[in-house]
Formats: sequence, structure tokens, C-alpha cells
Amino acid sequence: MGNYYEKALELHEKWKGKISVELKAPLKDKEDLSVAYTPGVAEPCREIAKDRNNAYKYTWKGNIVAVVSDGTAVLGLGDIGPEAALPVMEGKAALFKRFAGVNAIPIVLDTKDPKEIIETVKRMAPTFGGINLEDISAPRCVEIERTLIEELDIPVFHDDQHGTAIVVTAGVMNALKLIGKKKEDVTLVVSGTGAAGSSVIKMLHAYGIRSIYAFNVHGILRKGDMGEYNFLEKELCEITNGEDEPLALSEAMKRADLFVGVSAPKVLTKEMVASMKKDAIVFAMANPEPEISYEDAIEAGARVVGTGRSDFPNQVNNVLAFPGLFKGALQVRAQKITEAMKMAAAEGIASLIEEKDLREDYVIPGAFDERVAEVVADAVARKAVEEGLSRI
Amino acid sequence: MGNYYEKALELHEKWKGKISVELKAPLKDKEDLSVAYTPGVAEPCREIAKDRNNAYKYTWKGNIVAVVSDGTAVLGLGDIGPEAALPVMEGKAALFKRFAGVNAIPIVLDTKDPKEIIETVKRMAPTFGGINLEDISAPRCVEIERTLIEELDIPVFHDDQHGTAIVVTAGVMNALKLIGKKKEDVTLVVSGTGAAGSSVIKMLHAYGIRSIYAFNVHGILRKGDMGEYNFLEKELCEITNGEDEPLALSEAMKRADLFVGVSAPKVLTKEMVASMKKDAIVFAMANPEPEISYEDAIEAGARVVGTGRSDFPNQVNNVLAFPGLFKGALQVRAQKITEAMKMAAAEGIASLIEEKDLREDYVIPGAFDERVAEVVADAVARKAVEEGLSRI
Repeated sequence: MGNYYEKALELHEKWKGKISVELKAPLKDKEDLSVAYTPGVAEPCREIAKDRNNAYKYTWKGNIVAVVSDGTAVLGLGDIGPEAALPVMEGKAALFKRFAGVNAIPIVLDTKDPKEIIETVKRMAPTFGGINLEDISAPRCVEIERTLIEELDIPVFHDDQHGTAIVVTAGVMNALKLIGKKKEDVTLVVSGTGAAGSSVIKMLHAYGIRSIYAFNVHGILRKGDMGEYNFLEKELCEITNGEDEPLALSEAMKRADLFVGVSAPKVLTKEMVASMKKDAIVFAMANPEPEISYEDAIEAGARVVGTGRSDFPNQVNNVLAFPGLFKGALQVRAQKITEAMKMAAAEGIASLIEEKDLREDYVIPGAFDERVAEVVADAVARKAVEEGLSRI
Repeated sequence: MGNYYEKALELHEKWKGKISVELKAPLKDKEDLSVAYTPGVAEPCREIAKDRNNAYKYTWKGNIVAVVSDGTAVLGLGDIGPEAALPVMEGKAALFKRFAGVNAIPIVLDTKDPKEIIETVKRMAPTFGGINLEDISAPRCVEIERTLIEELDIPVFHDDQHGTAIVVTAGVMNALKLIGKKKEDVTLVVSGTGAAGSSVIKMLHAYGIRSIYAFNVHGILRKGDMGEYNFLEKELCEITNGEDEPLALSEAMKRADLFVGVSAPKVLTKEMVASMKKDAIVFAMANPEPEISYEDAIEAGARVVGTGRSDFPNQVNNVLAFPGLFKGALQVRAQKITEAMKMAAAEGIASLIEEKDLREDYVIPGAFDERVAEVVADAVARKAVEEGLSRI
């Protein structure tokens, strides 16, 4: 990885920006200028003034996403500020284009106040077809996303929460199919109750998993401990640990068919994985070092193992979800991205591996599988129409 | 012009955006992803976290301008709202790229409150290398620009104010050279005291013209009428109408060597132009129909005539100024764009026509003269360094 760091520094200095703005309209002569700019441009302006939905018809509004961050939770680096977050946001914008043909630009904000972030995004919103929130620390990110979803009429999506959840859910769908367990019979243990963890728990619960234990750094979530939890963890208590048991992670793992980690390196021991139910599934996504390494999990007897790393099978990579998700939402000018649309995205990703091709080391398609964005976009667009959220 | 409108509508619908975001970094495989995104991207992030000026080194910050509008004064259309302003802002962004290679993106705001606009731009500022304010109504635009210049450490420039002023000043420099009058001896009449008019007056005053009469819709500016003026007009009273005379436009025109119009169609009659001093210079830039047509002004005896129209000689086109101006400011990471830098831009534009090539119908270079942006950028960058405002 040292090599990547060195090379990244060198290339970032060469690129001075991983994206650029380019012309789609020719501006070769006066004639071109008179059509793309004054006086001709007045006409699309007038049409949009009559009906602001015409912005989708005459401008890039229908295909431009803002990647918005306050720089408070960047990669594993923490609160490094807006400027230092720019390389990541630029990279994200590049991924949008590369994987789904969606234009995206970074917007980094010089405020950490949730109310100010909400206010600022609302004021900029007429510019964009969608808002991708990124690397905003939890639980603030949840409050910000919820308010913006409620108050804006364009899709708002916090990738750190739901991107991972969608891809993990796709992986779980395929893994259960492969090993022949029913979702209703499965017990799930999740380590991590932050942005990603809480979304994983809610999504797998919505998917149909009923027995869930959630752990934060202090231990298992229990209704008895509500005073110490943030509002996000309080919500998780509603759908986890039904019997309110004070289990240690090692005890819960003995009951688990499925483990999902979005927490910290080395949280799991080989003994814990070995103690899981038969045909155990382990998704260990702590970054850059997982809760347990791929090799150790396999050695300990897990049947299906996924991590966040590209150098091992079953990589849980958000790039499978967000580009197609926004592409689909933008295609039908959806007003928002709903739980059902996210589930449709997960089903779309899972569907790319036919049952006959499923293998322990292939329950999640590869990041460079060129079919993904299109299939996800179609599934999401169809669901939006079904839900009456399309505006075309 | 009807043709342009029809064609503009048709092409805008086809383009669905006159600009797009494109990749500069390749994202072909896992290796590319590991350098442009995680884990490699962490390294430029860390470098910027140490010193935020490194954002210029490792991201597009040094070559990205926001074209910001609230949609309150769009072309001749007035207050049509943020979405309806998008086609113009996109066009402006395209001009930045086409004429100076500067990346630019539209940002339209869902607020008209100057304090909120200032606040919003300040919060977004870490994202950008510069801010081009556009089509914000006067006199609010002046307050917004001044506050942002004071409070931000990146260049902020309201093109509607200064773009026209810079190009007119270049035209006046060359016209005076051509006809052999000294700036100190010239009397100037300006019709229009809004965003552009006030900047024209200040810039030509700074250039060295001492005798100036300014007219708004109600008549000549006089210190006696201060109660009726906005703060901008009050400032103009300090440098115009030194004797505080209650002149009609027709009376002032008899004294004029030079007329500049940034007001309304047909404000000037042929008689008024005929009554001007010998070798009269007329810049009539009301849009789309000038204060007096090019033909009428020539027929009435004006020697040098310019308008805002591309179908007549001496077009006063802002595109001669803003792309090179920002290019130069960004090249040296200037903290702001000063009066001296704007004057350097005007001198740069004027310098493109050698004295031997100056003609009555050629005092301003053409919009598609490919030398302009480079010459303006050089002049502006050099001036910024001279003023100690460069940060490289």
C-alpha cells in the first residue's frame, strides 16, 4: 500500500484535478455563441421561468449530482477539514462519471453545523439533480440526510450510510441462496453502529432478518442502556436484541449465521468465527484492515467471506451501488430515494450473478462488471415509477 | 434573432447541458482505483490537512471557478429565479473553458437575501479557486461582492459590474489613441448607474478622465438629490458633476467627447450625437437594442462607435475580459482581483491592436481573437505579483 500512497501523491500533483469541465455545445464562432449564449439562451431561460421542471429539459440539471462533504469523517482520517476532503470528493465525482455516465462535482463546506449544512445544501439545490452526501460524521449525517430528504424535491443520499448497506444486502441475498438458508431463520451479529452499521442493520431487517444483535465499542445494544445511546442507537434498539440480553460479542457470535463488521480492525478472533453456526457468512469491512482477515475467516471455517478490499473475493465496494442508484433516480426525475428503491438496487446487484454461477468466493459482482450500473439504474427507476415518485 | 431563439431551444433540448464533467484520471482497473481513490487518495488528503494551500497542488481548486447567481437580473429578463438562470450560467461556464481553459460550474441559489447569499458562498468557498458572481440585481450585487472580497481569500468578481467596464476602458484607451485626444481633456457622459454603469464610471475615472456626467432614469446625478439615491449612486456623486449642474441629457451631450450607455434602448437621438464634440466616441451597450444604433450613431457623425452586438464593429463583449482575468488570477493564486488588476486587463486587451492597425471600426479586438485570454492573463498575473497578492 505504501506504493499506492507514493504513486497517488505523484499523480495527484500531475493531474491537479481528477475531473475537468468540458464543452458539449460547440463554441467555434459567433453563430455558436448566439445560440449557446446571448441572445439565443434567453429562450430556454423563458421556458424554465414558465415551469421550473423545464430545467431538466434544457440544462444539465437532470444529470448533475453534488458530492457534498464537510470533511468531518474522511476515509479513516477523521475530521481533516473541507479542503483536505477535496481529493476524495473529486474521486467520488470521477466514479460517478466512470461507472454511470453521471456528471458530479465536489462541494466541500466550511461549516460543521448540521443546521448550516442543511441550509447551504437547500440553497444550492436548484443547481442539481441530486445530492450525494459524503464523509460527514455520525450521527450528524443522519439528521442532515433526513431533513434534506424531507425538505428537498430531489434525491438526497448519504453514501456512507446506505452504499455499504446496499452492497452487503446484495451479498447476503446471494450467500443465503448459495448455502440454502432462509432469511427468517438467520441470526445476524453486527459490529459497528455508526453511519454504515445502522443502515446495514435497518436494511437487513427490512430485508427480513429478524434476529439481530448490534455491538458498539462499549458492547451489545440493550434497551436497558438507552441513556448512553445517541438517537441512532436508540432506534436500533427497537429492532435488535429482542430479549434484551447482556451478551458479550463472543457469546452472540455462537448464535450467528451471519456477521457484518463496519467497525474496527481485529474485532473478531478466529475462535469467534469458528464458534458460528454451520455455513457461516462473514462480511468484515473495517477499512483498510478488516475485523478479521479474509484468510483467517476462511481458516476458521466461514463459508462465505467478504471484505472491503479489492485484493480479496467478494469486495463490498460502494461503487456497485451509488452510480447506478443515482442514474436510475435521475432518469425518472425521482423526488427521493426510498427504502424500496435501495432494496431494488440490492436486488439488481445480486441478480447479476445467476444461481448456477454462485460460488463461495463469488456472491458479489466485481466493481468493474460493466453491467452493474445499468441493471441497478433500471431496477431503481422501475421502483420509483411504481412508488409514484417519478416526474416524467 | 427569432431564428436564434428557435435554434437555441432545439439545441438546448438536444444538449441537455452545455458542459459535462469528464475524467482526467484514468479509472480503467483496480490499480487506477487504488491510486485515484482508496487507499491512495488518503495521501494527498493528509498533505492538504497539514497545509490547506496544498489543495492547489493536488486538486482542481486552482482551476475551478463557481459561476454564482440568484437569478434576479438575468439578461434582459429580470428576476426569473435560480432554475431559469441555469442556461445562462452554464453558458458562462462554457465560455470560461472555451476562451481560457478554466473549469467553471454554475451554482444557482434559492435565496435573494444578500446576507444569505454571502453566507452560502463563504461556506462553499473551500471548493473553488475563484467566484464569478453573475446576474445579481443592483445595488445588492455591489454589497455582496464587496463583502465577499473582504472576507474570502480567493478572487471574487462580479462580471456584470466590471466585465463591461474593463472592455469599454480598453476601447476608450484605443479610441483616444486613434483620435489623438488626452484622457485628462475628455468629457464623459454615462447613461446608466446600475451594476455596469457605476463600474464604468469608476474605472474611467481611475483611468484618468476627470469630467464626468452620470444619468439614471430620472436624470443627471447631483449632490443636491442625494436623498433619492442608493449607496452606489451616492458614491458616484463624489466623482461626477463637479459643479452640481442640473443638466438635461441633451445639454450634457453637447459637452461630451465620449458617451457610454449601459441603460436602455433609444436613449440617444441622432441630434444628441451630432451635438457632441468633434471626433465623438460612442459606446452604446444596452442589450439587445443599444441606446442608439450603430448606423444612426455613425450617420450622426460619431467617429468611433461600439455596441454590445456581435453583428457590428467594436463589440464590447465581456468574454474578452473575464476568462483571461480569472486565468491570470488563478495562475498566481491571487487572493483577490484588485482595481489595478482590472486596469491591467483593460491595458492587455487594448494592447492587442497595434497603433498602426487602429481604425475607427477596430479599437476593440474580436471575441474570437485567440490571443486575448493569454495576454490578459499575463497582464493580470504580473500585476497581482507586483501588488504582493500572489501566493506562489
